[in-house]
Amino acid sequence: MQDHTHLASRRSFVASANGHPDFPIQNLPLGIFALHDGTGRAGVAIGDMILDLDAVLAAGLLDGAAEEAAAAAEGGVLNELLALGGGPRRALRLRLFDLLSEDSTERARLAGMLHRAADCTLHLPARIGDYTDFYAGIQHATNVGALFRPDNPLLPNYKYVPIGYHGRASSVVPSGHPVRRPNGQRKPATETTPSFGPSRNLDYELELGLWIGPGNALGEPIPIAQATEHIAGFCLLNDWSARDIQGWEYQPLGPFLAKNFCSTVSPWVITPEAMAPFRRAQAKRPEGDPKPMDYLWDERDQAHGALELELEVFLLTPGLREKGLPPHRLSRGHASGLYWTPAQLVAHHACGGCNLQPGDLLGTGTISSASEDGFGSLLEITRGGKQPVTLASGETRRFLEDGDEIVLQARARRAGFAGIGFGECRGVVTPAP
Amino acid sequence: MQDHTHLASRRSFVASANGHPDFPIQNLPLGIFALHDGTGRAGVAIGDMILDLDAVLAAGLLDGAAEEAAAAAEGGVLNELLALGGGPRRALRLRLFDLLSEDSTERARLAGMLHRAADCTLHLPARIGDYTDFYAGIQHATNVGALFRPDNPLLPNYKYVPIGYHGRASSVVPSGHPVRRPNGQRKPATETTPSFGPSRNLDYELELGLWIGPGNALGEPIPIAQATEHIAGFCLLNDWSARDIQGWEYQPLGPFLAKNFCSTVSPWVITPEAMAPFRRAQAKRPEGDPKPMDYLWDERDQAHGALELELEVFLLTPGLREKGLPPHRLSRGHASGLYWTPAQLVAHHACGGCNLQPGDLLGTGTISSASEDGFGSLLEITRGGKQPVTLASGETRRFLEDGDEIVLQARARRAGFAGIGFGECRGVVTPAP
Repeated sequence: MQDHTHLASRRSFVASANGHPDFPIQNLPLGIFALHDGTGRAGVAIGDMILDLDAVLAAGLLDGAAEEAAAAAEGGVLNELLALGGGPRRALRLRLFDLLSEDSTERARLAGMLHRAADCTLHLPARIGDYTDFYAGIQHATNVGALFRPDNPLLPNYKYVPIGYHGRASSVVPSGHPVRRPNGQRKPATETTPSFGPSRNLDYELELGLWIGPGNALGEPIPIAQATEHIAGFCLLNDWSARDIQGWEYQPLGPFLAKNFCSTVSPWVITPEAMAPFRRAQAKRPEGDPKPMDYLWDERDQAHGALELELEVFLLTPGLREKGLPPHRLSRGHASGLYWTPAQLVAHHACGGCNLQPGDLLGTGTISSASEDGFGSLLEITRGGKQPVTLASGETRRFLEDGDEIVLQARARRAGFAGIGFGECRGVVTPAP
Repeated sequence: MQDHTHLASRRSFVASANGHPDFPIQNLPLGIFALHDGTGRAGVAIGDMILDLDAVLAAGLLDGAAEEAAAAAEGGVLNELLALGGGPRRALRLRLFDLLSEDSTERARLAGMLHRAADCTLHLPARIGDYTDFYAGIQHATNVGALFRPDNPLLPNYKYVPIGYHGRASSVVPSGHPVRRPNGQRKPATETTPSFGPSRNLDYELELGLWIGPGNALGEPIPIAQATEHIAGFCLLNDWSARDIQGWEYQPLGPFLAKNFCSTVSPWVITPEAMAPFRRAQAKRPEGDPKPMDYLWDERDQAHGALELELEVFLLTPGLREKGLPPHRLSRGHASGLYWTPAQLVAHHACGGCNLQPGDLLGTGTISSASEDGFGSLLEITRGGKQPVTLASGETRRFLEDGDEIVLQARARRAGFAGIGFGECRGVVTPAP
């Protein structure tokens, strides 16, 4: 799985890439960016810059499978590129690596195709056909279940079924898009009838997202051994949640308006190739847990399918901003909190014949660590709002206030390899209409 | 709301349209059809024929808003036409009515643009961005709730919240597409651990579908008084359901694989203009039920927003086919079984800012009548499989067997007006992989 593109010693002629916490030359994530005219173009993040992939293609700097990949990325969405699967994507990576390396022979020609990321707007990388959200963070499921059922937090199906539900594709937005507080029906336990108004318990959820690649035809399941080939990339996902609306509406068919007003993704597609050094064995299940059923069991996936990723959540409030204080770190956790591997989520999703399509987005569900400094939502951190967080500014938070900003971060580290990151996934809460 | 196009006395030069139970000249539903080359083209159903709308446009037979509407329907999907809203759609209807009426001056030119429907394939009318399924059939909710909670079938939120959840858009198919029985995890009460295999309790659900028109921007709710303008058409919807998979997977986040393997729609978009004579007052709520909240309350919608539609479900089995017996009518009900109007579903969906987009599909939820000959699923008819249905062939059914076909039908009738129908919504169950 390792090739020369991952070694920490490799450097780019783009100076800001060397030692960049997110986008060194070892990452090369794909995305859609726009300059001042607003038209989306395919691009690659390199340090503080974005390489215009459409321009690289037009300049004739690509051939073979790499050219095929870049041609599929034209038109302002990456769906066709994602559909191609791993071969062309890998060829493109290798060619971009050579083009951007410090001994590149095309350095002069590329100079005009590099734009300062700060001057660009990032779009969604793909037209999302369907968005599905799982519930694979077992500590999160346990924490939330315990708020309702202290003696029996996990339901009987949890360790057999990768629990998931369909989310709303139209309201998925890229990092930076404001998050408008939703109005909705709320009925606190202290009131006898519901009322309509702005959510009082607005929360975030720390998740990873999976971008679907080739996908499957309707009625044709994806075997677990092939599931990894259908994952074309990774991102961060903030599944903003209105807890008061959720509590009142969600029985018996699950969350609806409580989670469909906005979901934020980090806009760079982190490729499986970039993540190759950062795969790990799936955490061993505790004694007594059932072995996954055959359609979810693959030795290779168990040995290499999990992700070595450190995850952090920061909160920036009006008070912190006014006083020039740094963002407050709400949590620091790890992707090992997932009870199912990405491949298991894909294989389960398709096991009944549901067709996954290029550009579909799968969320893992909220990822919480076992220790409370790694909980992935305010619902868990504040025990349902009962134990507010106190910030350096003197402010306290049960849930999010207007003007608050949440920033999610993911970083992969391994000795001997250049670390990579996922880039920003942020959103500011704005007042309800 | 009434105009001359609805009168029963109006006739078409297309002979089969006159007295046609579904598609008389008073209906003129819009859809996407294909001839032998398979390319989707916009069309209009008229009797047993389909008028090629792309050809009508190309022949210069349209102008003004009608031309704008037909131009937006080019390209094999109706999304852009749906986005235009009522004005252009009404103009197109009026022009098509004149073109197809028995005193049409363009009869000769149109002859070559009319195709026998039997020679055509019908596609989905739109690219469905998101599909949402509601639960607005109160008798269905009561029947299903009673199977689990005999003393308290409806949950406390039911009469306040139009309960809904997100469904799977990618697996919505047009009438006639086979329905492959899904594999999945099942755990009958008689077994201690789940097993994986073909669903043993495959069911249908009788629903109506709403096609979304212009829609709203993210963060901008749709006021109830404007909600009707965002409904561009109606269809039938069969929300195929694997009850055993559903029972095991659905807690706590709702149905997922149990309902995402296939959903069938009738492919013709029945316009609000065609349905205008068949609107009725919403059924008065029983004494003691809460009045809908302000954001769901509109006097005009209450007076005219409900649908006058008779709904039927037929079952055709291998045994009935072999013996030349007619389809077995499983139920005959009425759309008045809906606790919320279509406009209320739209206003609720958008009240938190969720953006609806042209071509989105909303299902009403299963519609059951109070009497058991109008129940909208086998789950209800057979009391969860305990009371099988016996057919004239001697066969019995708890749930659907391979080879069974379900046909949904919707007809609108009113004295003095030509009745219209929605056309076929059918699917045959094929074996699991």
